[in-house]
Amino acid sequence: MYKSSDENRSNQFSKHIKHYKIPELLTLSSGYELSDCEISYETYGILNKEKNNALLVCHAISGDSHVAKHDDSDIEGWWDIFVGPGKYIDTNKFFVISSNVLGSCMGTTGPNQINSATNKYWGADFPEISISDMVLVQSKLIEHLGIKKLVSVVGGSLGAYQAIQWGIQFPEKTQSVVSLAGGSRLTSQSIAFDIIGRNAIRRDPYFYGGQYYDKEESPDTGLALARMLGHITYLSQQSMSDKFDDDRYEPKDVDTNFEKQFSVGSYLAYQGDKFVERFDPNSYIVLSQAMDKFDLGENSISISNKLKNKNLKWFLISFSSDWLFPTSLSQELTKALFMAKEQVSFVEVPSNCGHDAFLLEDDIDYYGKYVSNFIEHIFIEDENTNSKQNKKSLSFDHELILDFVIGSKNIIDMGCGDGSLLDYIKNYNQGGSLLGIDNNLDELLHASQKGIPVLSLDLNSDLSIIGDKQFDTAILSLTLQAIDNVEKILNEMCRIADKAILSFPNFAYYPLRNMLYEEGRAPKSKGVLGYEWYNTPNKRYMSIVDFEEFCSEKKIKIINSRFLNSNTREFVQEEYNYKADLGIFIISK
Amino acid sequence: MYKSSDENRSNQFSKHIKHYKIPELLTLSSGYELSDCEISYETYGILNKEKNNALLVCHAISGDSHVAKHDDSDIEGWWDIFVGPGKYIDTNKFFVISSNVLGSCMGTTGPNQINSATNKYWGADFPEISISDMVLVQSKLIEHLGIKKLVSVVGGSLGAYQAIQWGIQFPEKTQSVVSLAGGSRLTSQSIAFDIIGRNAIRRDPYFYGGQYYDKEESPDTGLALARMLGHITYLSQQSMSDKFDDDRYEPKDVDTNFEKQFSVGSYLAYQGDKFVERFDPNSYIVLSQAMDKFDLGENSISISNKLKNKNLKWFLISFSSDWLFPTSLSQELTKALFMAKEQVSFVEVPSNCGHDAFLLEDDIDYYGKYVSNFIEHIFIEDENTNSKQNKKSLSFDHELILDFVIGSKNIIDMGCGDGSLLDYIKNYNQGGSLLGIDNNLDELLHASQKGIPVLSLDLNSDLSIIGDKQFDTAILSLTLQAIDNVEKILNEMCRIADKAILSFPNFAYYPLRNMLYEEGRAPKSKGVLGYEWYNTPNKRYMSIVDFEEFCSEKKIKIINSRFLNSNTREFVQEEYNYKADLGIFIISK
Repeated sequence: MYKSSDENRSNQFSKHIKHYKIPELLTLSSGYELSDCEISYETYGILNKEKNNALLVCHAISGDSHVAKHDDSDIEGWWDIFVGPGKYIDTNKFFVISSNVLGSCMGTTGPNQINSATNKYWGADFPEISISDMVLVQSKLIEHLGIKKLVSVVGGSLGAYQAIQWGIQFPEKTQSVVSLAGGSRLTSQSIAFDIIGRNAIRRDPYFYGGQYYDKEESPDTGLALARMLGHITYLSQQSMSDKFDDDRYEPKDVDTNFEKQFSVGSYLAYQGDKFVERFDPNSYIVLSQAMDKFDLGENSISISNKLKNKNLKWFLISFSSDWLFPTSLSQELTKALFMAKEQVSFVEVPSNCGHDAFLLEDDIDYYGKYVSNFIEHIFIEDENTNSKQNKKSLSFDHELILDFVIGSKNIIDMGCGDGSLLDYIKNYNQGGSLLGIDNNLDELLHASQKGIPVLSLDLNSDLSIIGDKQFDTAILSLTLQAIDNVEKILNEMCRIADKAILSFPNFAYYPLRNMLYEEGRAPKSKGVLGYEWYNTPNKRYMSIVDFEEFCSEKKIKIINSRFLNSNTREFVQEEYNYKADLGIFIISK
Repeated sequence: MYKSSDENRSNQFSKHIKHYKIPELLTLSSGYELSDCEISYETYGILNKEKNNALLVCHAISGDSHVAKHDDSDIEGWWDIFVGPGKYIDTNKFFVISSNVLGSCMGTTGPNQINSATNKYWGADFPEISISDMVLVQSKLIEHLGIKKLVSVVGGSLGAYQAIQWGIQFPEKTQSVVSLAGGSRLTSQSIAFDIIGRNAIRRDPYFYGGQYYDKEESPDTGLALARMLGHITYLSQQSMSDKFDDDRYEPKDVDTNFEKQFSVGSYLAYQGDKFVERFDPNSYIVLSQAMDKFDLGENSISISNKLKNKNLKWFLISFSSDWLFPTSLSQELTKALFMAKEQVSFVEVPSNCGHDAFLLEDDIDYYGKYVSNFIEHIFIEDENTNSKQNKKSLSFDHELILDFVIGSKNIIDMGCGDGSLLDYIKNYNQGGSLLGIDNNLDELLHASQKGIPVLSLDLNSDLSIIGDKQFDTAILSLTLQAIDNVEKILNEMCRIADKAILSFPNFAYYPLRNMLYEEGRAPKSKGVLGYEWYNTPNKRYMSIVDFEEFCSEKKIKIINSRFLNSNTREFVQEEYNYKADLGIFIISK
């Protein structure tokens, strides 16, 4: 049977909980006017004098304000690995605010509390709420704390929805938004799971239309079933196999009235029973419904209309095995943000852990560091962030591309690696927007460390996430030879940018010709041609003349070109198809 | 409320149902002795005089004996698209038997029937049954019909388990097994869904410990919830989006006590309510439990131990978006069958339809034709199946490989295309085993039409599905130049076969040399080199000498080699790296 919030988890950390009763009437998105709304929250770290180091963390469906321990004697927080002194969200630097959401049962006004108008439990009379209402309540708290602008709003799952909604509703009150395992709306599949969970609760004979607080029994079975189902969707197929296959027929000995077969069965029974002790069925209905109805639009165009002129920095992170909030949803939102001309980074973290990944240590080296790089750079953005890099540290290829780039403000580097080219470019394009794409997350992490917006993407996959003419210049440096569909990527570069700069090795450079002609061997050189025939990532072997002919056939305009000998670091004017080992082209369509 | 079988669907096709009461006591796998077991079944087509054209079709969890219409006036069968006159399982040729499984509620003995020993409904006293028990009951029916050996046992989902179990339990009574959307056992994720379904039924207050038949109420809510959940797992994420996204907020107007929000909600409510009308909660528990406990082993080694010396032909089909019985399960079983030296074909059908794909028309052009090719070839296997192909119709490359193959019995062609080489080889290796691999399902379908066992697999992916030294000879014809990991595939060829034969274009053939040297252009020729630099599937450009050096470095033995000029169709002895355009090697490790 459900125990009221005084008896459950929140009681254990209640000494840290603060309460703020919102003095004014709140008009909810349904039109309902809510009075006496009280918000429970906790804070970590110290708000600086300028009050510009505050950050709001938003919790998921079953979470609470206790995001982290306040000290060693404190009970565990739900995101201790992420938030705390020296952690990825460093409470030595940031003043972290975490509040319980409206409609929950962990302190903030919700169905398990007394409605002051009737002096009865709210129960099923609790008004339908939306993510927007949750965010409205949080904004009142931020105001109360005297904070004009947050560094960021950060959250995962339902928390990600709140962060995203902050960006839409109060863009002037935050500098940035971080969404982990979020997206633009749920899939029909995910909604279906929520519906079954709500049906299990509402059709439990002890639901009593939601007014079970004074009864002997409450809809525990329904809530436990909903929670069991939730747990399957939080894990991935792989992580469930990893967790339960080895002792498939050896269930843990749990005290339960649910089925006791299979190790996964005992896990579900335990999770279901435990949840009933600490969560309120009405809150589950209210919150899951708010989640199901969060919908920024059915496609990137309709979504982007809600995102225009926010002038925020966004960082979206998805997890490859998350099927509750699949990567495609974050990609759709990223695409819409690009269309709305917002500054956005998006990274898909390869993970076995499913939706829960953002709460687990397994992949924190990626998602933790990316978030940490992002929020730290926002915080120091007023400082001089010019690169300390010396032009001499650039590769010859990059040095030459740089000459072509000067004058461009908005630049995308496709295959940016550690971001050193863009980092150097930063010196010249104050106020411009940069983006680095790479599919190597370790390299890309270096780029994010340099404060460059990043996008994890395989250049051979779909580039339609990036809008038309979003950039002045697109760069593809020494990468064309490893691309599957050459025509497609060149078309895409010309679509997303006014001009495209690309460099590639010339396969007709005379030592390569000689190698095949005289020795009868697959040509090989150094640098990007420094592989053996059987292990090279290259798959396109073109000469400068091949490329020129290709452009002419495909109606691609060559605006400029340079041919180089990278050994002598000299330009080649004559017989370039013979004497140059590198071609650099500016093209457009 | 559940209606007994007389009132439901089975009543509508009951005029075609036949009944057989098994005279003897059946000892179930649990040790329970079941008396008076009665099996309901239907038959289609005519049993020939030799009684060798019979085929058993097995149904999934909610199915029945009514696999297809008997005539135009008949009600719909559950597999009308697949079974019938002129259909993929052609009842003009085959005598098709379809029976209701033990433990179901559609006619065969199950919990909703009267236990003759107590004169009460079986209810929860119905013994726990296994897939093996279902198959035992079916075998009694086959015996009763005077059939010594079936052409095949065919089934999908729970039906696939029955087909596979037939192969294990009664290998002498069938020539082959066809498994659609099956596997070696369920994933922990799939078991978890079943557990929640059973918990919903058993914890429904109207379950009355399973003895609800005489009560006013039955556990309808629990069964409906279980069915709703089932329906999510039968579809894919993509197919649910396709089905429900367009009218997400426009639920159908269904008469239900379940949630009415969202179009997917009205679908689930409708499916849940409808199921309660025709299915028995106890049967759902009994059958889902049997499914969860079907387990051939945790890995291919343990599975293969159960599959040895069956001497059957197996055909496994999985569907790419099926996450209830994912492809990996069929692959594991395929691997085990290879290890057990059974003849096995496996095809993964690309599909958006999820687990339900095997019941739907969307992908039937693949799965229907593959199954049809397979069973027809089994039926005519005694006929002379020698290829009518003329040696002259073979390509020059194949003609030469053929010389190297003579004497080999067990041959795998990696990248077999339409199977013409293997088809020709058939003439010479009576009693040997052949296998064609390709990732092009349309080409592979032609191979299956020729009666060649097939395996749909990308050669760049994992080949570990095939066991060590399974074949005498592995062939890789004109494909090496398009392989990602050359070293891996050569090692794999040497692992799975005693010797490997491979042919590839010589990149140092003099016209190619000249093209690069004199013209400064990416070399191009005809055949596999007949692409442009920007669209060629090739990614490895090696000369004969490159390959020879590679073998020497990697300790690969070259047993034999031939160098050819395919224009003149002559062997090249001298200056082969210059004058030959094709190399053929036999290698081993």
